Amino acid sequence: MVKASIVGASGYSGIELYKILYHHPKVKIGKLFANTSAGKKVSDLYPWFAENEDARFEAYDVEKTGESDLVFIALPSGEAMSIVPELLDRKKKVIDLGGDFRLLDISAYERYYGHQHSAPSYIADAVYGLPELNREQIIKAQFVANPGCYPTSALIPLIPLLKEGIVSDRGISINSMSGVSGAGRKSSIDLSFVEVNETAKAYKVGNHQHIPEIKSVLEYATNRSIGITFVPHLIPISRGIYTTITAPLKKNISSAAVEEIYQTYYKDEPFVRFLRKSIPEIRNVVYSNYIDFSFRIYEENDHLIILSAIDNLVKGAAGQAIQNMNLMFGYNETEGLK
Amino acid sequence: MVKASIVGASGYSGIELYKILYHHPKVKIGKLFANTSAGKKVSDLYPWFAENEDARFEAYDVEKTGESDLVFIALPSGEAMSIVPELLDRKKKVIDLGGDFRLLDISAYERYYGHQHSAPSYIADAVYGLPELNREQIIKAQFVANPGCYPTSALIPLIPLLKEGIVSDRGISINSMSGVSGAGRKSSIDLSFVEVNETAKAYKVGNHQHIPEIKSVLEYATNRSIGITFVPHLIPISRGIYTTITAPLKKNISSAAVEEIYQTYYKDEPFVRFLRKSIPEIRNVVYSNYIDFSFRIYEENDHLIILSAIDNLVKGAAGQAIQNMNLMFGYNETEGLK
Amino acid sequence: MVKASIVGASGYSGIELYKILYHHPKVKIGKLFANTSAGKKVSDLYPWFAENEDARFEAYDVEKTGESDLVFIALPSGEAMSIVPELLDRKKKVIDLGGDFRLLDISAYERYYGHQHSAPSYIADAVYGLPELNREQIIKAQFVANPGCYPTSALIPLIPLLKEGIVSDRGISINSMSGVSGAGRKSSIDLSFVEVNETAKAYKVGNHQHIPEIKSVLEYATNRSIGITFVPHLIPISRGIYTTITAPLKKNISSAAVEEIYQTYYKDEPFVRFLRKSIPEIRNVVYSNYIDFSFRIYEENDHLIILSAIDNLVKGAAGQAIQNMNLMFGYNETEGLK
Amino acid sequence: MVKASIVGASGYSGIELYKILYHHPKVKIGKLFANTSAGKKVSDLYPWFAENEDARFEAYDVEKTGESDLVFIALPSGEAMSIVPELLDRKKKVIDLGGDFRLLDISAYERYYGHQHSAPSYIADAVYGLPELNREQIIKAQFVANPGCYPTSALIPLIPLLKEGIVSDRGISINSMSGVSGAGRKSSIDLSFVEVNETAKAYKVGNHQHIPEIKSVLEYATNRSIGITFVPHLIPISRGIYTTITAPLKKNISSAAVEEIYQTYYKDEPFVRFLRKSIPEIRNVVYSNYIDFSFRIYEENDHLIILSAIDNLVKGAAGQAIQNMNLMFGYNETEGLK
Repeated sequence: MVKASIVGASGYSGIELYKILYHHPKVKIGKLFANTSAGKKVSDLYPWFAENEDARFEAYDVEKTGESDLVFIALPSGEAMSIVPELLDRKKKVIDLGGDFRLLDISAYERYYGHQHSAPSYIADAVYGLPELNREQIIKAQFVANPGCYPTSALIPLIPLLKEGIVSDRGISINSMSGVSGAGRKSSIDLSFVEVNETAKAYKVGNHQHIPEIKSVLEYATNRSIGITFVPHLIPISRGIYTTITAPLKKNISSAAVEEIYQTYYKDEPFVRFLRKSIPEIRNVVYSNYIDFSFRIYEENDHLIILSAIDNLVKGAAGQAIQNMNLMFGYNETEGLK
Repeated sequence: MVKASIVGASGYSGIELYKILYHHPKVKIGKLFANTSAGKKVSDLYPWFAENEDARFEAYDVEKTGESDLVFIALPSGEAMSIVPELLDRKKKVIDLGGDFRLLDISAYERYYGHQHSAPSYIADAVYGLPELNREQIIKAQFVANPGCYPTSALIPLIPLLKEGIVSDRGISINSMSGVSGAGRKSSIDLSFVEVNETAKAYKVGNHQHIPEIKSVLEYATNRSIGITFVPHLIPISRGIYTTITAPLKKNISSAAVEEIYQTYYKDEPFVRFLRKSIPEIRNVVYSNYIDFSFRIYEENDHLIILSAIDNLVKGAAGQAIQNMNLMFGYNETEGLK
Repeated sequence: MVKASIVGASGYSGIELYKILYHHPKVKIGKLFANTSAGKKVSDLYPWFAENEDARFEAYDVEKTGESDLVFIALPSGEAMSIVPELLDRKKKVIDLGGDFRLLDISAYERYYGHQHSAPSYIADAVYGLPELNREQIIKAQFVANPGCYPTSALIPLIPLLKEGIVSDRGISINSMSGVSGAGRKSSIDLSFVEVNETAKAYKVGNHQHIPEIKSVLEYATNRSIGITFVPHLIPISRGIYTTITAPLKKNISSAAVEEIYQTYYKDEPFVRFLRKSIPEIRNVVYSNYIDFSFRIYEENDHLIILSAIDNLVKGAAGQAIQNMNLMFGYNETEGLK
Repeated sequence: MVKASIVGASGYSGIELYKILYHHPKVKIGKLFANTSAGKKVSDLYPWFAENEDARFEAYDVEKTGESDLVFIALPSGEAMSIVPELLDRKKKVIDLGGDFRLLDISAYERYYGHQHSAPSYIADAVYGLPELNREQIIKAQFVANPGCYPTSALIPLIPLLKEGIVSDRGISINSMSGVSGAGRKSSIDLSFVEVNETAKAYKVGNHQHIPEIKSVLEYATNRSIGITFVPHLIPISRGIYTTITAPLKKNISSAAVEEIYQTYYKDEPFVRFLRKSIPEIRNVVYSNYIDFSFRIYEENDHLIILSAIDNLVKGAAGQAIQNMNLMFGYNETEGLK
């Protein structure tokens, strides 16, 4: 049994962690830290959570983590870096669902996140928690930086094709659509029903913080310089991310050959569903830890189109974090997730 | 006054034509042809249309078009080609909102539309009805092939940059999201609320019929071979198209220089709104004939991102058709559309 | 020409007023007061409003209303009462879209609105602005209290039946569903997309401020004590109200006789559509000033069911206010509204 | 272990049965009968169902039910009555999710369902499967008529108050809102996204087939004549029912006394959540077998308002059917449902 606490438990990713951990056979839940909701019952904010009526949020205090073996951090970007050092120093295992420790390049961090990094010496301690890429390091890690939602949806289908030299290192165009829960649980006119319903738009065009994350992980995976564009869009659904990637083919290749590459890389991955025939849809993955993806060769132009779908709160956040926890503590990787 | 009839009046584009024409000061509505709804009142299918309670759909018969100066055709693709010849032979002006006469290349037509063309000798008679590109020819036309919804959203912002040699002729990636009315008014489980709500997906990846339309119009506008990819997506909104284009820059260029090109091309266009600062949103254009678009230069990768939004039933169909009608009959181009 | 200003112009009702007035042939728009958005352009908040790019919100100051003949007040409840006296004292005509001057009974006001009334002596000056009930008084009024959205949807179909003694004075059950714009434009987690989408709920059960409004207007119209229940619900749509009323029949009556009563009361009303056959739907009235309603006699139980639909922002707010303005200034009642 | 087959497995209720049974520890799934989808894989229609890729629908044939202990019937109304006799004659246990065997009064059946009943002699064999009312009979039953979705939402909160004589037997007004899956999985323009989105409407006013079901079960529970009205509404959500009941109080009563009645009736019910403080919301019950309900006393009018929420496909259909199965086979009543 692992005793796990959550910092930032009242946001959408935090409560998703709680929901999954609540039914996880190897986990005992410690503290639910949420400063803005401290003192409130979980069921006050999330009324369907009647099963454990007594659970309450409380204010974060590192002293209260004493009995926890593992601390999940589900805070807005910029807040984890002030508590990660004290948790690591106390020998806690830490999984940070935010972006503070995903970029080795501090200048990129500060440019895209818009604030200084207060704990740069801890960045190198973090293992990037994409199990399909870094399983062995995650197993041994004390500290995991859980991937961003958009990067998860793009990296899994792209990495094998770049590693195998199928698509060009330049001119990879990534377009994503996200449900509104991706923006977090907050009070904002921009996220209100009337403003989001019956419309769609791109946002943060050219300056989204996942741009350097996707690029740097692709470069880490290939050991080459990679050029991408990434444009996120907001659409009126609650959960889910859909990603469409257009990548120039380096040479003619058959669909069968691409399929074989994907089979080789992912046939044993418990949460990767490579679809040979059908096209992914968001509804097929919501509330699950799966990534569904497929591809089509666009013959006339020698391009390859990749389509992928995940639940932004599960494989894109809480589910992947628990997948990482399972690896870090030696449990079956799918425990609590199917 | 022009007397105008509509063939296919009971579909979403057909009824949108009727709604706009009903208030158009220069138009007298002739017949509303709709074979499957023949005999029904317009208000039976569209109950908000109580203003003209007596209007009824009737079965199409070319003899009944006798008094019409103009016939709009809003039929599913493949059906217009069987009636366009008889209408043109009777000296009617015709605006076809479908795809039967947009492609000069019959083999491309037959490949992407999946059926033979029965009136190939009439294709060359059609003027492609994008006023921003072909205004002078439209003014003189007897027969206009109204552009597709997706092509409208992509062509208007792309043409100036290709003509001016700002972006590369190859590697242009076009991604679009469409509301469900784009699929037409039909009985289908795939379009039912439960199947479409809370999800998103790509469809017709690599074989959508608008691929050759976009490509061929760009080639017509530039007189060069152009390479694009186009991937359409379905999202849970009723109306609207959002298009995101990634295009490689041929050389370094400032945002100001791109802005100047757009100003030059479009400053007098009544329905083109080039946004210098903000990002388009579908809700800003629904129920209007506007196209909103903006761009961002994506410095690291020497790419340019274009974002555009239209109402698929207005600028993407009925509104643009009426804009073309205004041009063909010498009315103010915006009559009935603002 | 009337010169009209709006106080509270940046909320959903305020901007709806501006949109309609902007195209009204007899109106010149004066000031757009909105304290929280003072200095911002209208198009910053409502980007589709590109037609009048220069319009800006400004802070309210009674001195700035000097040239206005008419002031619309579209403020949250409790705020109008502090400015109505100074406007009336300056001989402005005033139409208040909020609830401050709809209830003659101050104790009911203070109980249901939860705060004291600071201008009780002005309450009797207000004419309740339901044209179908009070047209003659509105024509002569200086000050109109525009009806609430829910009351509008319930009063119009109920009044004739109560006046004619068709339904019982007790046991009238009113249930309404509202779109989210009814809650106003504000920053609130409860109104965020994720919290409102894919759900429905009742709210303010037994203590909604429209309970005394419906009751008191029915009593004013009939001069009898009337007993109702009213339960509002929030559903995931942007605009519209749907109201279902169950009323006990006092005696057996034929559908034809009820129809005749409605025809007698409403056949000349420009915005009342009594549907003899079909059932109202919200989509048939959105963006219009119509109320659609129908009824069914529920034979087994000697009850009558009434169903009505309005757009909460038009007939339920801004449209009805402009209908009242037309009456107050001697214009055609439908001017600017069709 | 029970071997269970499903007739009508490809509809929304049928597939919900399959989803729940698939994970039920005491169930082995037999045949998935679905005539219109015979030969197709489950995952062709429901692509998220990748876990059991080999499952296929097949045409119904009573001979194929040989090994099944239990047959669930999830067919449109009017179809079960032609197969129930042959299944009962073969000693199968049967749970019918449709309406064919819920009404003892054949003339009411034929009036509200609009067709003749072909197996009237089997009606008396069916136990009405509302565990909160009929648990003991269900335990012993061979044949259960599973309750309708709307009746489930209304009966559970109403029965205790009628039994205890708290509310009047007459003048009970029941209003419900349903998600679109309640209409079943079928190809229909009326259920298409564009027709259902952003609107709401009542339907089958005064002639819905659940009117006699609610009335007759209330009369069975109380042994008195009961008078209700029931009006169903369609709202743009996929799943869920919200029911609001207005009932006249027979005498003054405190909230505490009503609470005590509900506690007495339901404190041990595993799927009934009586909410003392909060108001139910559909999102709190979707994908669960819970019914949430609360009440408010409406003092001025001596009425009581009841609010309830269920998932129409779970407690309103498949979940309740499995709850009944658990009772019929002696399993823990919540097995597979939490």
